[in-house]
Amino acid sequence: MKIDGTWHRSVRVDADDGWSVRILDQTRLPWAVEWLRLVDEAQVAHAIRSMQTRGAPLIGATAAYGVALAMRRDPAALEPVCAMLAETRPTAINLRWAIDRMLAALRNLPVADRAAAAYAQAAAIADDDAATCEAIGRHGLPLLQEIAAHKRGATINILTHCNAGWLATVDWGTALAPIYMAHDAGIPVHVWIDETRPRNQGAALTAFELGAHGVAHTVVADNAGGHLMQHGQVDIVIVGTDRVTRTGDVANKIGTYLKALAARDNGVPTLDMRVGDGVAEIPIEERAAAEVTDLTGRTADGRIETIRVVAAGSPAANPAFDVTPARLVTGLITERGRIPATAAAIAAMYPEKAA
Amino acid sequence: MKIDGTWHRSVRVDADDGWSVRILDQTRLPWAVEWLRLVDEAQVAHAIRSMQTRGAPLIGATAAYGVALAMRRDPAALEPVCAMLAETRPTAINLRWAIDRMLAALRNLPVADRAAAAYAQAAAIADDDAATCEAIGRHGLPLLQEIAAHKRGATINILTHCNAGWLATVDWGTALAPIYMAHDAGIPVHVWIDETRPRNQGAALTAFELGAHGVAHTVVADNAGGHLMQHGQVDIVIVGTDRVTRTGDVANKIGTYLKALAARDNGVPTLDMRVGDGVAEIPIEERAAAEVTDLTGRTADGRIETIRVVAAGSPAANPAFDVTPARLVTGLITERGRIPATAAAIAAMYPEKAA
Repeated sequence: MKIDGTWHRSVRVDADDGWSVRILDQTRLPWAVEWLRLVDEAQVAHAIRSMQTRGAPLIGATAAYGVALAMRRDPAALEPVCAMLAETRPTAINLRWAIDRMLAALRNLPVADRAAAAYAQAAAIADDDAATCEAIGRHGLPLLQEIAAHKRGATINILTHCNAGWLATVDWGTALAPIYMAHDAGIPVHVWIDETRPRNQGAALTAFELGAHGVAHTVVADNAGGHLMQHGQVDIVIVGTDRVTRTGDVANKIGTYLKALAARDNGVPTLDMRVGDGVAEIPIEERAAAEVTDLTGRTADGRIETIRVVAAGSPAANPAFDVTPARLVTGLITERGRIPATAAAIAAMYPEKAA
Repeated sequence: MKIDGTWHRSVRVDADDGWSVRILDQTRLPWAVEWLRLVDEAQVAHAIRSMQTRGAPLIGATAAYGVALAMRRDPAALEPVCAMLAETRPTAINLRWAIDRMLAALRNLPVADRAAAAYAQAAAIADDDAATCEAIGRHGLPLLQEIAAHKRGATINILTHCNAGWLATVDWGTALAPIYMAHDAGIPVHVWIDETRPRNQGAALTAFELGAHGVAHTVVADNAGGHLMQHGQVDIVIVGTDRVTRTGDVANKIGTYLKALAARDNGVPTLDMRVGDGVAEIPIEERAAAEVTDLTGRTADGRIETIRVVAAGSPAANPAFDVTPARLVTGLITERGRIPATAAAIAAMYPEKAA
């Protein structure tokens, strides 16, 4: 998608003959648009752990490029490099997929051939992700067209949580892909963006990318969504998902479950983008308490400061994801089409994932 | 309740023969314990509008003292002073009550007698509020004793939202009153404190006052409560309420509704403290967008800074309260006793409020 009129992907090989890759430093957004240069797998691992790059699909593609960078220097280190990168984020299943795909493509190659094959495979993973997101957008767009027809030209109000946009993927995004397509097709859309505490990905990243693309939006506290739904100000809830169980339960950023409850209570459809996995046990990452106690932002005179907002001495807890039961999910929008969140529909759409 | 071992009320007449009143500046908490000196009704109005003092009961008592300060200088100005003070916060029904009570006590008095009567009436309002909160605590305590008996000595986990503690009232608090009593009685309690964006009253005020009194607690993002309930980590939800309709719907800080939905979905009882009013139409205050976009806190080197956390140019919306339907409320704990959130029970408990 575009920044200042120029189309970008969120990860790309640099113009130095592939000795580095570039990612947008998402801990600096929205204050600065800085393309970080990563030269080896340790820098890639640090970028993933520190959430300089984040979003399940983008983490997968970036980790794949981390393998490629490592193969150039030491192609014999394939297994330990992959094991190290796979451990950088426990909840991101796309990370495991990407690593497994790299392993499968490289493991049986002569050591001398691994570097070239690794770059090709990482590029394929990135291209596949962009194509997947574009397909999700195409499958989701009719939903917004239906609502637009029903509203006879009035603006469609969409609520989203966290960032499932192009900054979380290689391009297009998942939850935001149909919104971008609707906007580009001239459908009037307005997006309520949950701030998404504790890391504020909504306020910082989703607001940044929708603004850069010219999509109307308003940031609200995570607490506000239920009230907006009670007052008919939300036509549809669209969020991303990190993992989906075989029965249709959805793991996504902490707080998604609360919005799904409110949506059901108010008859608002809730759509989750991109079927991830058929794994029944979803581990919930507990992240650092400092993410709750401390916040970083810009002062009126332009300095970037980190402040503590919790009373001195009070501890904080920080579960990073929650699980929304399938009964609260209206449907799943996948790269293969739109389906209900049921075990039967998921098994029919993804027969290759059946145990 | 106590700060540094000394018992305080949240508003008190100063030792200068009543020419001023003192309130804790709650916009400076938890970073500094500062007792603001207010000398006239304009300073009182500013303190209420700017939320230097907040919490429905405390606002009422403080406004009453504002009338008293004004009566000393110009007892003929009773009606315009009361009208001005009544408009400082639209949702706080206790404010209207307190003002109406002052008007009723003073309106028919000779002008020369109004000042003394006003101080006496304001003191009575403050004493009544402290007694009311203590009664709420006594009526709520058996609930926690029941849970304690059921848990056989294991710690009781209570989730609360916003600040309904002694900082929001003249003393004791509403939602926190039974928690203080349980703690003082030796029952092991632990409180999950919702951060309560956008103004962070949970992270700043509830964490401060529970910490000052020695009650175990953990601050979590507003998004986390549903997840905690899904994992059995919440035994009961106790929140305050600003207003209750005649049918039992409850208006409280924005985000309460989402927690009530999650509590019902997980079989957790939800108790709302203090029946406020029988008014069916509850206006929802829309506060400044800057409360969502900007946050104030302390840097690592001790400076108090305000930072913007929302992308530049992105607008924000800020509804400050929401309404939790009675069907999601397990019960109401009032100064007269504990009742279900039904029209019949409310009418039976408060016959004088029936139309």
